[in-house]
Amino acid sequence: MCGIVGYIGHRDAYPIIIEGLKRLEYRGYDSAGIALYNGKTLHVSKTKGKVSDLEARFETKASKHGTVGIGHTRWATHGVPNDINSHPHTSNSGDLVIIHNGIIENYESLKQELTARGYTFKSDTDTEVLVNLIEDVKLQENVKLGQAVQIALNQVIGAYAIAVFDKNKPEEVVVARLGSPLAIGIGEKDNEFFIASDASPFLEYTKDAVYLEDEEMAIISRKKGVKVRKIKDDSLVPTYVQKLQLNLEQIEKGGYEHFMLKEIHEQPKAIRDTYRGRLLRNEAIIKMAGVEDNMKKFLNANRFIIVACGTSWHAGLVAEYIFEDLARIPVEVEYASEFRYRNPVINENDVVIAISQSGETADTLAAIKLAKSKGAFVFGVCNVVGSSIARETNAGAYTHAGPEIGVASTKAFTTQITVLTLMALRLARAKGTISSSDFRKYLLELEMIPNKIEKSLESDAHIKIISDIYKDSNNCLYLGRGFNFPVALEGALKLKEISYIHAEGYPAAEMKHGPIALIDENMPIIVIATKKGHYEKVVSNIQEIKSRKGKIIGIVTEGDQQVKTLADHVIEVPETLEFLTPLLTTIPLQLLSYHMAVLLDKNVDQPRNLAKSVTVE
Amino acid sequence: MCGIVGYIGHRDAYPIIIEGLKRLEYRGYDSAGIALYNGKTLHVSKTKGKVSDLEARFETKASKHGTVGIGHTRWATHGVPNDINSHPHTSNSGDLVIIHNGIIENYESLKQELTARGYTFKSDTDTEVLVNLIEDVKLQENVKLGQAVQIALNQVIGAYAIAVFDKNKPEEVVVARLGSPLAIGIGEKDNEFFIASDASPFLEYTKDAVYLEDEEMAIISRKKGVKVRKIKDDSLVPTYVQKLQLNLEQIEKGGYEHFMLKEIHEQPKAIRDTYRGRLLRNEAIIKMAGVEDNMKKFLNANRFIIVACGTSWHAGLVAEYIFEDLARIPVEVEYASEFRYRNPVINENDVVIAISQSGETADTLAAIKLAKSKGAFVFGVCNVVGSSIARETNAGAYTHAGPEIGVASTKAFTTQITVLTLMALRLARAKGTISSSDFRKYLLELEMIPNKIEKSLESDAHIKIISDIYKDSNNCLYLGRGFNFPVALEGALKLKEISYIHAEGYPAAEMKHGPIALIDENMPIIVIATKKGHYEKVVSNIQEIKSRKGKIIGIVTEGDQQVKTLADHVIEVPETLEFLTPLLTTIPLQLLSYHMAVLLDKNVDQPRNLAKSVTVE
Repeated sequence: MCGIVGYIGHRDAYPIIIEGLKRLEYRGYDSAGIALYNGKTLHVSKTKGKVSDLEARFETKASKHGTVGIGHTRWATHGVPNDINSHPHTSNSGDLVIIHNGIIENYESLKQELTARGYTFKSDTDTEVLVNLIEDVKLQENVKLGQAVQIALNQVIGAYAIAVFDKNKPEEVVVARLGSPLAIGIGEKDNEFFIASDASPFLEYTKDAVYLEDEEMAIISRKKGVKVRKIKDDSLVPTYVQKLQLNLEQIEKGGYEHFMLKEIHEQPKAIRDTYRGRLLRNEAIIKMAGVEDNMKKFLNANRFIIVACGTSWHAGLVAEYIFEDLARIPVEVEYASEFRYRNPVINENDVVIAISQSGETADTLAAIKLAKSKGAFVFGVCNVVGSSIARETNAGAYTHAGPEIGVASTKAFTTQITVLTLMALRLARAKGTISSSDFRKYLLELEMIPNKIEKSLESDAHIKIISDIYKDSNNCLYLGRGFNFPVALEGALKLKEISYIHAEGYPAAEMKHGPIALIDENMPIIVIATKKGHYEKVVSNIQEIKSRKGKIIGIVTEGDQQVKTLADHVIEVPETLEFLTPLLTTIPLQLLSYHMAVLLDKNVDQPRNLAKSVTVE
Repeated sequence: MCGIVGYIGHRDAYPIIIEGLKRLEYRGYDSAGIALYNGKTLHVSKTKGKVSDLEARFETKASKHGTVGIGHTRWATHGVPNDINSHPHTSNSGDLVIIHNGIIENYESLKQELTARGYTFKSDTDTEVLVNLIEDVKLQENVKLGQAVQIALNQVIGAYAIAVFDKNKPEEVVVARLGSPLAIGIGEKDNEFFIASDASPFLEYTKDAVYLEDEEMAIISRKKGVKVRKIKDDSLVPTYVQKLQLNLEQIEKGGYEHFMLKEIHEQPKAIRDTYRGRLLRNEAIIKMAGVEDNMKKFLNANRFIIVACGTSWHAGLVAEYIFEDLARIPVEVEYASEFRYRNPVINENDVVIAISQSGETADTLAAIKLAKSKGAFVFGVCNVVGSSIARETNAGAYTHAGPEIGVASTKAFTTQITVLTLMALRLARAKGTISSSDFRKYLLELEMIPNKIEKSLESDAHIKIISDIYKDSNNCLYLGRGFNFPVALEGALKLKEISYIHAEGYPAAEMKHGPIALIDENMPIIVIATKKGHYEKVVSNIQEIKSRKGKIIGIVTEGDQQVKTLADHVIEVPETLEFLTPLLTTIPLQLLSYHMAVLLDKNVDQPRNLAKSVTVE
């Protein structure tokens, strides 16, 4: 999604903002821009394309001077990506300049009102409407910028993080948040402040940060520091400064060609980090504070409702199978976007589990708020510590996967499954639905998963060869059953995301109810056919594909013979317990997508149109 | 799926069998064959392709004489569709001949044993293994054919309907059933019997039929009539003869170019038939015997679990939204194939609703048996009266849509939704979750749906023009939210099934979590954007697609202005209540698929690889 960076202080803002925008590139964007005020004039420069394109423009055309400035990477919602629609946007008078992440839903009617009052618009964006609305309020009500922002935002329906300043009063920047994240860095020396969508752009300058909550705004002034207020009633909110503990090196590629490849290979370590201190095999216990502290809630639940989007939704589907199988708790998995906009049947006896890598997914966050308003207990599974979802939930468990930069999620998925498996095992033991000897066996096997993933990663070269054969396919099907049905969905999503090949996942038996019509000799079909999990049934499905001349890539258990005789290619993964197979079968599918995308010369880490964390609805 | 037709009596079997096979063509198949015994020799003729190809072969090469015979249309499971793999198959001695619908799962090990005993095999089929197994048993144990079949089937793992006879004893045919349907017609004159997968092949000769149950076999003898036995222990079962009430004219095209088009246009009538006698608007009541008789079960249910496959699964998803919204009952929708193979959390307080047009879907039938074994109350929603699912469930409601011949389901879908909506309204009233005035309003609006569908059908010519523009697309996306998210899935399935274009449905908000990467100027995207149902949110999604240059076909409410300015094309449907919109938005999507497939010159009624009712797993 869009990225915001701003600076006000004593140094030149330009290098801070341009480097900051680069740090936010992983979020996904299609254009970029910066506004600087150099003491005399306000200079706005913006362009469709990459931050490097913007940089080139500054090298030749624009002044880099100014100690106050705001910068933006845009992920288009209203209006195509082009120079004019890029941010920052200025008001009609040329005094106010704004950057904005989010969507103003009622921009159409606001635009009509402003047009009637003589305002004109250069772009198709909702953002240009907002900056002129602020200007109009400021002039009509004869108030300061901060108050104009406050009044204007009360007329707005939608979601936003904004930063805006007035070139006639360049000693302050006003920011506000509803639904999109915004952090303020407090300079180590006085009178220097940073603004960003997350802390990474200012980590090298300061570890002190204020995170705005929803419906809060702040006036950041060189002289008076940071004052946080409620947007609704303008009341003052105490400023809470956090000490950050992130490490910049954590977000480097570490020798790999792409972040995605690095993150695929990090999975053994990431899963160990996920269960470290939680899975205590010698004592034969699982320790998760968020679960222990709320054990009653979990054990008395009518059902679990898992809400999530995208890859996290797939992790939720895997968890449904695991919770139901091990702990015998009925589970419903919902798209967060669907859950939040209907009137779901939910009450105080339900446990809602929200899953999100970034912890900022707008739809998931809204679903949490809805569930809480209905009295449900909400448990969060996030990767980013201190994220909105982590703060909004009643309790939770972090995945501890480390920063995930590749837009296509990999280690987030397997660590989410790991956390949810730990929960299921803990609850199963508490409910007595698994025996103590099985419990011990399962812990032992779970501890061996990282080694088995390492083994699976050894197929890399073999998978690259297969990728080269099928990289020019227009379409692809992924089939699995049971625990591996969601893995098929996730495998297809990965391919879609980074190679732009239309791939679709299906439960294997559903193929005959429609998708089989697509199959001919041009169609590669990836079938997860591990020994555990209805192997004979999957083999029958493979026979049916073969009868229609589809090309079969089988994901099989080490040493498999039967599928090998039928499939065009097989990729082996080590044997494990059936409910743990998704942690292994996922690996070759990640590598397959990765290699296809690289061979097709696609931008693996920043695929077109996509954003890392979806903070608009 | 495969079709079976057989005859034993006093007339020539050939014309009866060949016409019968034509009646079963709608089930989907890829090859056909017939075996006849003319008193001296057994003649087997079979071919890849259509029944008309088989007929041509008989015209030039084969003898049409014989008063006992069996015929088959094959839908390949083991081995590609070719002449050799087609049925009937003969045993090594050439004495026994068999036709088979289903899958023998352990054929590989049986084949090894038989090979070790000197048997050889011409085809790749599981069926040739079965006929030789029967021969081997017959010779080894020195028993009659009936007993050999009974012993052999006890060694078999899998599903089947079979018909087999011995040319040395042509006065009897042996049939058996496990998992695939089989009906026996009793000739009006004595000593004449018909065998078929459903009654349509023999309807013109007799209305008296015996339906075999699972695990039953029958010996059909010219002299001794029909004797039904249990396969397991050879015990005799009383023969129950049913009087059929089907009408042959019901399965004609009625002036339309294709069955599918006829069935699309039949929907207003089909829905009226569905609610006739149930929706009593003047009295303001809904009368459904299956619901009334089990009201306690429904009202005390912890949750409803809907199991289904393919299009019926989509109807189940629509029903989930409707049940939860109106009657406030938690609903879980499961793929029958997934439900049956895991260990689902289910008990006597759960109500399972099984949906299947044919009432013969193997996975759904198996899911019902599993649910019953766990003590759940099972309610069936089927179209075919007297089908296996109708007989296997505790109670149910027919859709009364009339025969559906087009392989791609249309009127079955909308009538399933109608039945489920009636149920939801009845239960909502009983629970008091809707007011009596709302109830009356809803009944009135539901009664107006057939007229509104007629109105929607008037867009036919407009839709044909749009179809012509996009017919050469490689890929397509379908987006919807809420009640219309499952309609997006169903729209995509229709296009896949009959045009072989890879289409995929998504909840609109999920697009940003992956599929949006696929969008470029070559991608048509069908967006359901009716006024009711988060219209503004869908408009935002349309903006995002437009920003990436996707081509937009909007399904909108009559008189819509906003989407019209954004979309490349709009198709209007009349306004109705939000929960009833799926009954209208489905119509243009059906027509779009139909026209694209016709323009691409595809076989609309019998798409490749597909079968009308999926009676194997």
